Amino acid sequence: MASLLRSLSGPADLRDLGDDDLTHLAEEIRELLLESVAANGGHLGPNLGVVELTIALHRVFDSPRDRLVWDTGHQSYVHKMLTGRAGEFDRLRHEGGLSGYPSRAESEHDWVENSHASTSLSYADGLARANALTGRDDHVVAVIGDGALTGGMAWEALNNIAADQSRRLVVVVNDNGRSYTPTVGGLANKLTEIRTNPRYEPTLTAIRERLTSGHRFGEVAYEALHAVKKGMKDALAPQGMFEDLGIKYIGPVDGHDRVAMEQALAAAKRFGGPVLVHAITTKGQGYDIAVANENDQMHQSTPFDRTTGEATSVAPAGWTSVFRDEIVRIADERSDVVGLTAAMLYPVGLDAFADKFPDRVFDVGIAEQHAVTSAAGLAMGGLHPVVAVYATFINRAFDQVLLDVALHRCGVTFVLDRAGVTGDDGASHNGMWDLSLLQLVPGIHIAAPRDGARLRELLREAVAIDDAPSVVRFAKGPVGEDIAAIDHVGGVDVLRRDAEPDVLLVGAGTMAAVALDTAERLAADGIGCTVIDPRWIAPLDPAVVELAAGHRLIVSVEDNGRQGGVGSTIACALLDAGVRTPVRIHGVDQRFLDHAKRAVILERQGLTGPAIAADTVTSLHGNIARQ
Amino acid sequence: MASLLRSLSGPADLRDLGDDDLTHLAEEIRELLLESVAANGGHLGPNLGVVELTIALHRVFDSPRDRLVWDTGHQSYVHKMLTGRAGEFDRLRHEGGLSGYPSRAESEHDWVENSHASTSLSYADGLARANALTGRDDHVVAVIGDGALTGGMAWEALNNIAADQSRRLVVVVNDNGRSYTPTVGGLANKLTEIRTNPRYEPTLTAIRERLTSGHRFGEVAYEALHAVKKGMKDALAPQGMFEDLGIKYIGPVDGHDRVAMEQALAAAKRFGGPVLVHAITTKGQGYDIAVANENDQMHQSTPFDRTTGEATSVAPAGWTSVFRDEIVRIADERSDVVGLTAAMLYPVGLDAFADKFPDRVFDVGIAEQHAVTSAAGLAMGGLHPVVAVYATFINRAFDQVLLDVALHRCGVTFVLDRAGVTGDDGASHNGMWDLSLLQLVPGIHIAAPRDGARLRELLREAVAIDDAPSVVRFAKGPVGEDIAAIDHVGGVDVLRRDAEPDVLLVGAGTMAAVALDTAERLAADGIGCTVIDPRWIAPLDPAVVELAAGHRLIVSVEDNGRQGGVGSTIACALLDAGVRTPVRIHGVDQRFLDHAKRAVILERQGLTGPAIAADTVTSLHGNIARQ
Repeated sequence: MASLLRSLSGPADLRDLGDDDLTHLAEEIRELLLESVAANGGHLGPNLGVVELTIALHRVFDSPRDRLVWDTGHQSYVHKMLTGRAGEFDRLRHEGGLSGYPSRAESEHDWVENSHASTSLSYADGLARANALTGRDDHVVAVIGDGALTGGMAWEALNNIAADQSRRLVVVVNDNGRSYTPTVGGLANKLTEIRTNPRYEPTLTAIRERLTSGHRFGEVAYEALHAVKKGMKDALAPQGMFEDLGIKYIGPVDGHDRVAMEQALAAAKRFGGPVLVHAITTKGQGYDIAVANENDQMHQSTPFDRTTGEATSVAPAGWTSVFRDEIVRIADERSDVVGLTAAMLYPVGLDAFADKFPDRVFDVGIAEQHAVTSAAGLAMGGLHPVVAVYATFINRAFDQVLLDVALHRCGVTFVLDRAGVTGDDGASHNGMWDLSLLQLVPGIHIAAPRDGARLRELLREAVAIDDAPSVVRFAKGPVGEDIAAIDHVGGVDVLRRDAEPDVLLVGAGTMAAVALDTAERLAADGIGCTVIDPRWIAPLDPAVVELAAGHRLIVSVEDNGRQGGVGSTIACALLDAGVRTPVRIHGVDQRFLDHAKRAVILERQGLTGPAIAADTVTSLHGNIARQ
Repeated sequence: MASLLRSLSGPADLRDLGDDDLTHLAEEIRELLLESVAANGGHLGPNLGVVELTIALHRVFDSPRDRLVWDTGHQSYVHKMLTGRAGEFDRLRHEGGLSGYPSRAESEHDWVENSHASTSLSYADGLARANALTGRDDHVVAVIGDGALTGGMAWEALNNIAADQSRRLVVVVNDNGRSYTPTVGGLANKLTEIRTNPRYEPTLTAIRERLTSGHRFGEVAYEALHAVKKGMKDALAPQGMFEDLGIKYIGPVDGHDRVAMEQALAAAKRFGGPVLVHAITTKGQGYDIAVANENDQMHQSTPFDRTTGEATSVAPAGWTSVFRDEIVRIADERSDVVGLTAAMLYPVGLDAFADKFPDRVFDVGIAEQHAVTSAAGLAMGGLHPVVAVYATFINRAFDQVLLDVALHRCGVTFVLDRAGVTGDDGASHNGMWDLSLLQLVPGIHIAAPRDGARLRELLREAVAIDDAPSVVRFAKGPVGEDIAAIDHVGGVDVLRRDAEPDVLLVGAGTMAAVALDTAERLAADGIGCTVIDPRWIAPLDPAVVELAAGHRLIVSVEDNGRQGGVGSTIACALLDAGVRTPVRIHGVDQRFLDHAKRAVILERQGLTGPAIAADTVTSLHGNIARQ
């Protein structure tokens, strides 16, 4: 069977295709999406939902002259297929293969690589301003989900976009009513009214009939849309809001009706100023298993069987599941503990807590800043909030952790999942900043559990802190076997103690296992080690400094960036104490990491037992030589 | 003359006062505001604008049982006077005296001390949720300016507040149309329509007449307000927006009409769910000089003469004025340079640039996240943006600097004013985080000029970097005399070089002068020094490591937090290079600083020549003893 998709040399070719070909193309795209995500894992639901929308975009706009900016770039697979990359989907998310997000190294059609939500409108505002200042009359198009509209940045951008009517900027709201779980908030409620209104379906059918009866790009069609919009206005569309802001609104449009989408986009393009096109889509469209899954497990998936939707290999129990279990036990015992999530109830494992105590878990939308500061309010009101987010997303609320929680001495616990190197999802998903960032916060307590038992234990210790922010951070993926301590010095766990040790190995969190492996290898070379897990990264336990004094070399290992991380703090504490023992700091290089498997990245970064053992031997010799 | 204000034992007493007394009280409050700010400096305009609003709040609500949360707490002076602190205004902003912001140490009526804008609705959401969960039926009231509504957090919070109608939460929008300069954006345009609509004044007069004709707290008055609201609805109020969100809207109300304010607040209180009360006020009301000042210099002022409004002492030219001047020269030469400010055109010194090139300077509102990411968009569009903000506010956009600017290798220059210790405005205004925070960003270039000549020079070097974020950070206040370099090693300036030096002193930015002073004192003790200014903090110049090797001790001085700052980076670089020379790190303790003069804080922190010289002597002796 000849592939239409692979015959396309670029998006311009789309404009020569007829209706039948375009329908066939949409089928081919869905087939390739299913095939490649089932094999490699990745984002399925969001991409199945934007097939027609993306085809329409590339037919109406002229990329890369017109700039297409994808919010939360995981919805860009179809765009990649239409811009010459369909043949590379067998290597999706493989190292050196296609990125799961737009990538400027891959294509001139890609602009924004950041996977964090709600940024697209700000980029688009800047790009459109630049166009206006440099005399370009091209368009900038931002595609943003209803979920991403719950993020404050999107509001800041809309407010600015509205203030200048001279710019050619089209905002496409891809409204599927979900951000993993259903999107929350006042605006989402309004959007849901539209989707569930009995007048919506018949109206869309009417539009479709008029639009497909011959007039494809004409004023008639635009008028039809416009008239329908007017008619539905009061009952349906969130017009008041966008009109109060001063943004022209077109919609709602059925996002799976390619012809209707093209009409709406063409009308928006002709308008010349900022316009918002409201498209209603179904996440997972065309694959019933994805549409039907209430927990939206096909939003992002590991490799799976297409017939059943079941994962092809069962992942071992991970860090998240330990937290998921323990937080329910804690909630059972303490009625003042409440949970907050930023549109990630299932991924961060707060779902069991929410099932058991639905009144005590709050999903605030993709709104980390609000999550943190409303947690401060909850704490002032006498409760103990547990804010669970991916480590990479706490970067978005640093100021709120610092001034809203810590300055006010609020007892709020932050649970940071996917900390350290995550790998497959690329640079913006790695949680390699949190330890450095959060150590800047006065009075904060930061724990890095090395195993499941420590996660349970440290989570309980964190939740017991009621006058300061506390943090528990752990990695992505399976949790290893528990590692018993052989001794305790202060709050520090001693994991190994050789006779007459030369080296003190400090392993933070999951890196404790790497530190033990390093010690094993050094022992084979006749070098004795003490291995410790500080458990609490901040405040640094004075026992670490005391223990250091008896060794010739300190070696610290963390899966956080080296700048301002655990090793850096230990080195400065030793200097402050007048201890002259040198420190070798092992951590992640302070640069953006290309996507690859976590293990591969850690190996490249020298964060393995063999690499650290070799470096330690060299350091010991070097130090001896200098003495 | 007996003082009514000072006779009040607490806000409850307000409810016993009659109209005449309340009018007299408002006059007394304005007099005290003028007197104390003229003497001590502080925020004048915002507080003159909320006199009646604050009296009304404290008559209708029962603080501290009902919780009043002030956004941007500089509008809380009147609240402080009404809650037992009128007698302390002669010590406003003095060390140990009244804080210029709410302070929980001062009063049980104060909840939120953070001076960063747009947080109040999130706190209120959390407090109201806590009330609902713990069975309290008190109210939470947040007072937020129209300026603060441009911040994304406010949107995130509104979206959440709207989603749960069961909470007793009143949002008072104090709409004065200004955030320093007039508030910008689509919503602000809508609000301006209301204020400037010819129907607004007569309508308010009509309300006032009906409300003052006898029915003070009754349903009649509420109905009157409500009817007026309905009548003005389509033309005037931003109803669509709040109704689409699902938040009940009352207004607009004349915020200087105490009776009308009380009516509106009482109606809001009775409603039981979340309500927004839209009050229109005039910044500086009652002091014509403040009202008339277009640049809003009476927003926050140094001590001034009440008759003329002129400052009582002329401040020497500061860092800001050097930047203000140089950026215009650069803009003259390079048409691709554009400026961005987050509602602070004058305070950050972008006004001269905007006067000369009005199309090239953008005020995005109190929206740091958007400022940074739209700057990334501008850079992608071929321009070179200069984002000028106070150092403390860049904390709000760390993720955007990291992933939107740096990951995409965009050439954006950040100019951070008021970096280091600022003093008077308390903990949340100190810019003591930026060097540690921004050093985490891969590929970033950070400059800390030591004097005006270096600011000009480094600003030009920063703006020439077109493939990475660049930062120029400087202190608050007067810029000292230029300090000439006697030599250059790599990119490092050598400021002093004694024969056979023991100590390498590294002074970052303004601390270069302190390092020189230290060296002078050490020379008197027979200890020779090399003093360097690295100019660029990041990336660290290899010359610093090379220079270090020839000394017995490295002493670093910075006015940034010690954690992860300049000294920490130098210490780690030496360890990485195998250099064993010890480092003494002088910087600000990693804790929140109470308000006091900058010089006093620096002295307490040991960041002066004498203190550092003494510490250096001790360290040298200690090191000798250990060898």
